[in-house]
Amino acid sequence: MYYFDNASTTKVLKQAADASLKCMIETYGNPSSLHKMGVEAEDILNSSRKLIANVFNCKYEEIIFTSCATESTNIAILGAAYSKKRTGNRIITTTIEHAATAQCINHLENNGFEIIRIHPTNGKYYAKDIIDAIDDKTILISVMHVNNENGLILPIEEIAKEAKRKNSNILIHVDAVQSFCKIPINTNKIPIDLASISGHKINAPKGIGALYMRKGTKIQRHSFGGPQENNLRPGTEALPSIAAFGIATKINFENMNESIEHYKILKNHLLERIENNPEILLNSSDNCVPYIINISIKGIRSEIMLHFLEEKGFCVSSGSACSKSKKSGVLQSVGYSKQREDCAIRISFSRENTINQIDLLLDAIEAGQKSLIKAY
Amino acid sequence: MYYFDNASTTKVLKQAADASLKCMIETYGNPSSLHKMGVEAEDILNSSRKLIANVFNCKYEEIIFTSCATESTNIAILGAAYSKKRTGNRIITTTIEHAATAQCINHLENNGFEIIRIHPTNGKYYAKDIIDAIDDKTILISVMHVNNENGLILPIEEIAKEAKRKNSNILIHVDAVQSFCKIPINTNKIPIDLASISGHKINAPKGIGALYMRKGTKIQRHSFGGPQENNLRPGTEALPSIAAFGIATKINFENMNESIEHYKILKNHLLERIENNPEILLNSSDNCVPYIINISIKGIRSEIMLHFLEEKGFCVSSGSACSKSKKSGVLQSVGYSKQREDCAIRISFSRENTINQIDLLLDAIEAGQKSLIKAY
Repeated sequence: MYYFDNASTTKVLKQAADASLKCMIETYGNPSSLHKMGVEAEDILNSSRKLIANVFNCKYEEIIFTSCATESTNIAILGAAYSKKRTGNRIITTTIEHAATAQCINHLENNGFEIIRIHPTNGKYYAKDIIDAIDDKTILISVMHVNNENGLILPIEEIAKEAKRKNSNILIHVDAVQSFCKIPINTNKIPIDLASISGHKINAPKGIGALYMRKGTKIQRHSFGGPQENNLRPGTEALPSIAAFGIATKINFENMNESIEHYKILKNHLLERIENNPEILLNSSDNCVPYIINISIKGIRSEIMLHFLEEKGFCVSSGSACSKSKKSGVLQSVGYSKQREDCAIRISFSRENTINQIDLLLDAIEAGQKSLIKAY
Repeated sequence: MYYFDNASTTKVLKQAADASLKCMIETYGNPSSLHKMGVEAEDILNSSRKLIANVFNCKYEEIIFTSCATESTNIAILGAAYSKKRTGNRIITTTIEHAATAQCINHLENNGFEIIRIHPTNGKYYAKDIIDAIDDKTILISVMHVNNENGLILPIEEIAKEAKRKNSNILIHVDAVQSFCKIPINTNKIPIDLASISGHKINAPKGIGALYMRKGTKIQRHSFGGPQENNLRPGTEALPSIAAFGIATKINFENMNESIEHYKILKNHLLERIENNPEILLNSSDNCVPYIINISIKGIRSEIMLHFLEEKGFCVSSGSACSKSKKSGVLQSVGYSKQREDCAIRISFSRENTINQIDLLLDAIEAGQKSLIKAY
């Protein structure tokens, strides 16, 4: 199979898998145990924490391990909202958030919070639109950094700086799942308070995530139990996956610029190939990252093309994996028609993808265009 | 190191680690993806679910994967309490629960629920004491099956049957972390509604747990996001750890009786050795499992002995790892003095432990008794 679904999940790096295996078989102590094997485990735990803190340019104790970005987002959004509810009830977010954020926000809306969902302007997000929505009852802004379906980049630096300037008490949460280790997030320069990240988008195993939480930030607990992870996330730490997450972060971060160059070359090649194909529409504008490309193939529904490509040996997706075949509405939200969203295919890269693979993929798409019955 | 801290965490079985590795490197698709790699991942997910369901003799869709037993317990207890709060507010539990249960219960107490914490009678729990506490406002009973510190077995079958007989609307949650794959829990015979289990206590990796939830049970969501795990536990499924959990469950369950016989032989040998040592007091009565043995070494504080043993190459614990050096009060709760709890050591077995290792451990403890300065 040629795997072009890396925004959904990735293959684990060998070095990361090795680190995980070592924690399963050798250094298998509980980081909370007082004996030598516990101390060894705790050392690995904190080494991984430091490797992740490097990316945020933050203190290592500002990284809290969770089981996935969805858990990080639940801890951040619900924790921030409930800890701030005496000072206000307005929360600002966007119309294109991942289900984790969107569903947390919906839950808060059902529980008395006022939610302002900002729409894009001409397919793009401007900090001004978010800042204008701030009033003196605003307690939280939650925005994604890079959209998972079309790769759109949101101006989190401008949003965070201007929001803090307008009201320094507002907490700012960023869903950084699709930008972590791909776009620098220097928390010394960008005044965000909370950020959710995931291991399995950067070649660590599925089942590990983390929350960046700026020192001094106070949020309500989401779960109850032992004192692990600075009293914020109870339960024995997932050491094998944490070790792998640290290693995958280190390798991806060290190769970040090189990877981005690689993705740009792949994207440019893909764009050249579709330029001459009037039946393929590009849904990822210039403001999008080079590793997520969303296209619509006129008249052919996503699932039909996805299964055609699968039979030819290609994995792509029809949108966010989390929502299965259900369309999220993200593309419509950035201004495209329902028909265009219904025909959308997401192609997302890893370092293993090559120009040759892109050619084979486009050949297969073109074969599909010829042989599949048009839906519209 | 001779590892006698298996109630804290265990070494991962080779076959389980291999299954995990395979999901990291080969079948690394997202179970929610529509393409072939997603379908392969989903197959592994549901195979593991079936292996775990076998132990509970339940339907496979009654197993929900979580990141750890603490998460399972949060989902179960908070979800049950908030979904039932219109019908009543009394919750019954015991005084010897793990921090996961105890802290969830404390949180509910702070939020208006009436908590009845049942004390043991002569170090033992009787169903009658719990049943007597049921009134018509009782909505939930949460009890552990096997205590993690001294191995005490609670009569969950009798509790569940009699509670349901008295009031069939009461939900019953069992913390089965220390009994899963060690004592049969046939949900066809024992009318519990919810049970929390953990992978890393049975040779699967740290970072995976599950919740048994009887079909038809309605509880409020604890977290928000994608529709994974029957809409109850959002976030991409931790496939590598889930695969390992399935395999570890299968192997442990198949060898359950044989393992118990092994543990009984080890325990008997240990008891014979300490019988002639009047300075060692046994804190695990006849009602305790054979794989967790708690002893107090008169006059020597737990941490002192623990570090002495560590230097001789033995890992034991001073109580629950989750609470680090802080004593939980469980031993005092079952009737022992504070001094006795302060001197407690927990020895917990795996299949790798041998009679010879027990002899070496007891030799080391005796050496400690001679050389360490008595605290009392």
